[in-house]
Amino acid sequence: MHGTVLYGPRDVRFEEREDPKIVEPTDAILRLPATCVCGSDLWPYRGLQPIDSPTPMGHEYCGFVEEVGSAVRNIKPGQFVVGSFAASDNVCPHCQYGYQSSCEKREWMLRAQAPYLRVPLASGTLVPAPDLPSADLVPSLLATSDVLGTGWFAADAANVKPGGTVAVVGDGAEGLLGILSAKQMGAERIIAMSRHEPRQKLAREFGATDIVTERGADGVARIRDLTKGVGADSVLECVGTQEAMMQAIQATRPGGSVGYVGVPHKVDLDGAQLFFSHVRLHGGPAPVRRYLPHLIGLVLNGKINPGKVFDLVLPLNQVAEAYKAMDERRAIKALLRP
Amino acid sequence: MHGTVLYGPRDVRFEEREDPKIVEPTDAILRLPATCVCGSDLWPYRGLQPIDSPTPMGHEYCGFVEEVGSAVRNIKPGQFVVGSFAASDNVCPHCQYGYQSSCEKREWMLRAQAPYLRVPLASGTLVPAPDLPSADLVPSLLATSDVLGTGWFAADAANVKPGGTVAVVGDGAEGLLGILSAKQMGAERIIAMSRHEPRQKLAREFGATDIVTERGADGVARIRDLTKGVGADSVLECVGTQEAMMQAIQATRPGGSVGYVGVPHKVDLDGAQLFFSHVRLHGGPAPVRRYLPHLIGLVLNGKINPGKVFDLVLPLNQVAEAYKAMDERRAIKALLRP
Repeated sequence: MHGTVLYGPRDVRFEEREDPKIVEPTDAILRLPATCVCGSDLWPYRGLQPIDSPTPMGHEYCGFVEEVGSAVRNIKPGQFVVGSFAASDNVCPHCQYGYQSSCEKREWMLRAQAPYLRVPLASGTLVPAPDLPSADLVPSLLATSDVLGTGWFAADAANVKPGGTVAVVGDGAEGLLGILSAKQMGAERIIAMSRHEPRQKLAREFGATDIVTERGADGVARIRDLTKGVGADSVLECVGTQEAMMQAIQATRPGGSVGYVGVPHKVDLDGAQLFFSHVRLHGGPAPVRRYLPHLIGLVLNGKINPGKVFDLVLPLNQVAEAYKAMDERRAIKALLRP
Repeated sequence: MHGTVLYGPRDVRFEEREDPKIVEPTDAILRLPATCVCGSDLWPYRGLQPIDSPTPMGHEYCGFVEEVGSAVRNIKPGQFVVGSFAASDNVCPHCQYGYQSSCEKREWMLRAQAPYLRVPLASGTLVPAPDLPSADLVPSLLATSDVLGTGWFAADAANVKPGGTVAVVGDGAEGLLGILSAKQMGAERIIAMSRHEPRQKLAREFGATDIVTERGADGVARIRDLTKGVGADSVLECVGTQEAMMQAIQATRPGGSVGYVGVPHKVDLDGAQLFFSHVRLHGGPAPVRRYLPHLIGLVLNGKINPGKVFDLVLPLNQVAEAYKAMDERRAIKALLRP
């Protein structure tokens, strides 16, 4: 088969890669009707997270089970399944505690921008849909695999409650689906920080009640204005830079919570500053597996349509253009059809 | 009256200070039957937190109301009251959210190592005991004012739950009362990190089930051993140094919580490390006012005896010796009798 390989900064190629096959008896092989590019893929694409050698890309996936290893239970060929970017056995103490993305046997998924994918720890990792979903639901199901699951974790980690006031830092697909998640959790007021009109539009569609276009100290001041000087109960940090993190912490009320899901790049927190902010901080690689059954249900029941974040659809062999469009902010998120 | 003044590193004097009097109509004047030295007083005493000029000391207090300003409600002369180190109006949005130590009108208490004390925002700050307590309860009531209230917040911020596994970093009075708090909240296993025998003894008396004498990476490894490699559900950080904070974060299981109450001195957190630890972090100046009614009740009903942390009692005019004994770790915490 052909798949996606990153060679270096802004050098993405679609080239021959080995067909995936069962290696461990706990593996499954999936055929992917769609895959996509993640905001986090742009860090190595931009050279901000150097790679040592040509690297297969992609960690978001859903699809049809082609084959399972001899030790796989509950997952059968022909089923439609979704998994997380972190494969997990779902039985170790960390999994049982709801932190499957810290599973003792965790394996990062790394080769999903391809037509076929090997999934390790398949019994623990994969969640089957009750029936084969219609094709129009595939983008939304694909979104549950990471970008929605991560936005949902951001909202959960930020302790979003019914009636609460929420601010979201970052208007990428993750931030936008953080808005959708906060809305689903009953937030009354959702302030989106965004300077880009198409993203503002989608933010409102997903549930944002206010838009703040300012950044940094001005952005924080705007959020304080909008909350009568108090700050937000919950702030979702969906970027991963120092500026975004400080904005999140400073926009949060004392005793409020920051949920951060942007992988931190050169982020440094001063202990004393954090102490006197009185903010609760929680984040990390989202334990998407915990949320998948619920999120898949919401998609299948038509309650949410997270697939709307895909505003560019390309054949998989044009994956290089997908990266380019996202890098240049011409696209929020690109869906790729193998 | 005479009171305590810090002139510089290891230079504490007991000298003439102005008698406190009502300045604002919201003030009250208390007569203090006892006061004490806090672990945090040792930072400026040791010169690690420089002072600009001679500084009156002390922020833990309880006592008899002598006089109240014209705007004070619910507090009357003759009552026995306890207040927090952070005066608060108890009605602003931060107070109502349970974070009185971030009150919009917060004033830090700074002159309590003296026979008399002015308390601002008295109606919000002070909690009266239902009756005059017997003299033997005064040390425990004094402890609720900060050191117990802070240990309690550490346990609450670390999300201690019935049946949970807790580790406590720091064997000062705050850490020891963090153990007592975790026990009260129903923790099943409480691991105290302590190398000092008298403190280990008190730790066990307050509820510690295990003692770890190792520090740093070895201490973390011991806690992992004791928890079958998982880590503790809740870790209380009661020191405020980089080493203690890293020890706390690394001893916590993914999805577990660190409650930190040691005022951070040169503590620096790496965002990526925190992210992948999956730890929940919450701390700050303890909102003691929130807990005071409950804690005073526990003391008056004989459920807890936090006053046991006072292992040195001196007349207030020997306050310099009290600082010295705590600095040299000859005393856990010194009680002073005016």
